[in-house]
Amino acid sequence: MTLGEKINAANAAVLTQILNAQPTLVGMGTAGADIPGMTKTTVLHAGPPVTWETMCPPQRGAVLGGLMYEGLAETPEAAEKLAASGEITFAPCHHHDAVGPMAGIITYSMPVWIVQNKTAGNYAYCTINEGLGKVLRFGAYQDEVIERLRWIETELYPLLKETLQIHGEIDIKTMIAQILQMGDEGHNRNKAGTSLLIRTIAPALVQTSFSEAQKVRALKFLDSNDHTFLNLSMPAMKATMDPVRDVEYSTIVSTMARNGTDFGIRVAGLGDRWFTAPAEIIDGLYFPGFTMADANPDMGDSCITETGGIGGFCMGAAPAIVQFVGGTPADAVNYSMQMFEITEGEGNTYQIPPLGFRGSATGIDIRKVIETGILPVINTGIAASTAGVGQVGAGIVHPPMRCFEQALEAFVEKYA
Amino acid sequence: MTLGEKINAANAAVLTQILNAQPTLVGMGTAGADIPGMTKTTVLHAGPPVTWETMCPPQRGAVLGGLMYEGLAETPEAAEKLAASGEITFAPCHHHDAVGPMAGIITYSMPVWIVQNKTAGNYAYCTINEGLGKVLRFGAYQDEVIERLRWIETELYPLLKETLQIHGEIDIKTMIAQILQMGDEGHNRNKAGTSLLIRTIAPALVQTSFSEAQKVRALKFLDSNDHTFLNLSMPAMKATMDPVRDVEYSTIVSTMARNGTDFGIRVAGLGDRWFTAPAEIIDGLYFPGFTMADANPDMGDSCITETGGIGGFCMGAAPAIVQFVGGTPADAVNYSMQMFEITEGEGNTYQIPPLGFRGSATGIDIRKVIETGILPVINTGIAASTAGVGQVGAGIVHPPMRCFEQALEAFVEKYA
Repeated sequence: MTLGEKINAANAAVLTQILNAQPTLVGMGTAGADIPGMTKTTVLHAGPPVTWETMCPPQRGAVLGGLMYEGLAETPEAAEKLAASGEITFAPCHHHDAVGPMAGIITYSMPVWIVQNKTAGNYAYCTINEGLGKVLRFGAYQDEVIERLRWIETELYPLLKETLQIHGEIDIKTMIAQILQMGDEGHNRNKAGTSLLIRTIAPALVQTSFSEAQKVRALKFLDSNDHTFLNLSMPAMKATMDPVRDVEYSTIVSTMARNGTDFGIRVAGLGDRWFTAPAEIIDGLYFPGFTMADANPDMGDSCITETGGIGGFCMGAAPAIVQFVGGTPADAVNYSMQMFEITEGEGNTYQIPPLGFRGSATGIDIRKVIETGILPVINTGIAASTAGVGQVGAGIVHPPMRCFEQALEAFVEKYA
Repeated sequence: MTLGEKINAANAAVLTQILNAQPTLVGMGTAGADIPGMTKTTVLHAGPPVTWETMCPPQRGAVLGGLMYEGLAETPEAAEKLAASGEITFAPCHHHDAVGPMAGIITYSMPVWIVQNKTAGNYAYCTINEGLGKVLRFGAYQDEVIERLRWIETELYPLLKETLQIHGEIDIKTMIAQILQMGDEGHNRNKAGTSLLIRTIAPALVQTSFSEAQKVRALKFLDSNDHTFLNLSMPAMKATMDPVRDVEYSTIVSTMARNGTDFGIRVAGLGDRWFTAPAEIIDGLYFPGFTMADANPDMGDSCITETGGIGGFCMGAAPAIVQFVGGTPADAVNYSMQMFEITEGEGNTYQIPPLGFRGSATGIDIRKVIETGILPVINTGIAASTAGVGQVGAGIVHPPMRCFEQALEAFVEKYA
């Protein structure tokens, strides 16, 4: 076989693995008990590796909040000192089978959804989405943020864990297929997904041993936050993509992630090596009172959705998302269409109704990105560049071309 | 003013009234206690007036079920005798501020959703949707049908009534606007509507005085039936349209309804007079084992949705519905586009995202229907022509042109 033939065979095999994945919500646990390699002083973060010194302000803010939530520091000042002391182990969520939206901070005591890819057997973990406003993932660490995290840990998590034990496993792949027919794309629009999750678990939730007041609080919290399902679509796609993280000769992107400082990609044929470049500022709709000048560069593991073929790649299924990220419904369809130019193939389950139920573009091929000059499209929330301010808008962003160029250079070096 | 000017002014006023309607779910009651003019021997049915003798088999079947449910007859044979005896008062739901899907049978003891148009103050009523399979609205009257109706009356209804008392009123107009962004069109696709309803009322449902087992049964029943919301979108549009039922000089259609024998329309400028023609057989997707030969002609009050500008008129918002009613997503968009040719204007709240959020075609003008030859598009379930068989498919249907011709003739006679 020529190198080209080897690459094509490897990419076809990778696409098959992606399409055959069966992401399933199997239960809940905690980062400390369930995520491999966690210690009480481990802080997982979104994106490729980053140090405390090079971390962006909102991710730093979320670290401070995480350290105070864990009781490792009493004040932001003490937390900052600890973070800089060398006593904290920082690591990407992606190195621990996990993903985190925006800042993506996961600490020892945080509850996590546990998603298993039933085909490959691997697991993926993600925290419970905190909602909007002042929240840790946008770098806030005020008392209300810590208190909400404690409530999630001590009341919501055990209630949801028991709910899932009563209900049994939930097929997230089928649920994502359904929400693509309901105007969601699984990244920044998850209103249908959150709705389906609530109606699916509500009967079991009623049957838990918790008090009426606790059940009501849990249902109201879930109902108040249409992003609840994001923290399931993300680990679903992480569980889908992780088995192709190391496939010889494949030029398919296995990971895209950003830490607010750098954007990083990994490629199946190049294993766990990251190819990074500075994260970009996002073009989008800014909330009243904010402009691009207030924006932190692109951040979060949530573009694992696009890596697996949903999110921005399925915007054609979610025309209403343009009210949030900007553009027109025609733009949304065009984004989905354009992605076919840079992928190995099309989904068999994740389909776009307005495109005649065509499967979504799946399996980003770094060769095609370089050849066409078309970059993957990602829709995303925009964090303020100052810790504690929160979300300032939402929009469309792309990875830097430099990530793909470096990856291709490394690929040539390894295989040619 | 010329006659033409008077008509234009009246139609503009009617459109304003339609667009300003504020359909709101205000509570639940029973047909006997809440629907004006009900007696213990009244049987309301879908569509324009019909007699027992001219009623189609599935509507007859539903009448038998209704009489047995009310305890007015012990057996189908006894019910048939009673129905033919002249002791039962048959009347259209539409003559009693009510609407019913398919056969549309409403009897004295049946619970009803109560929707109020907060702008005009009027009320509209509709039963609780029974789900799929063997159900009264498709003409089934077996024991399981009657038992389900009794469970709805004795357990589900009081539980939901208390739920709404705890929750308070629900703005159905806003909910419909949202589901149009979630792939529903409010007639044959109500998966998003049902989901939003469940997540909205779930916390209050938990707070009712009912047992855990009762709450679980209620939530599972609602979750099992994506048509639950149809029985809210219908009275919402009935409450929207009723205030324009008698507006001098207007050529806007105020009602479209079918009883499985006849299709009937009413026109604002012609008050409560029905213009009818034989109902048509539906072109669509038949369930395995069934063909057009098994189909009853078009039936039900559900096309009140199209009359008010949603349902078939919003199919462009609901591309996935073509998997149920046939055609392609492009057809769905074309249906929505074509309806602009025959309506007075466009919605301000009910919008179609794939058309750049254009408001849906609203206010069918009989003049434009005659001039263009374009008939309103309706998507609909298809009942078997034999009572008790149930649904055999779903598809697209139009009112007979003869209804519009007769109405225009009557209009000319009255006003010219």
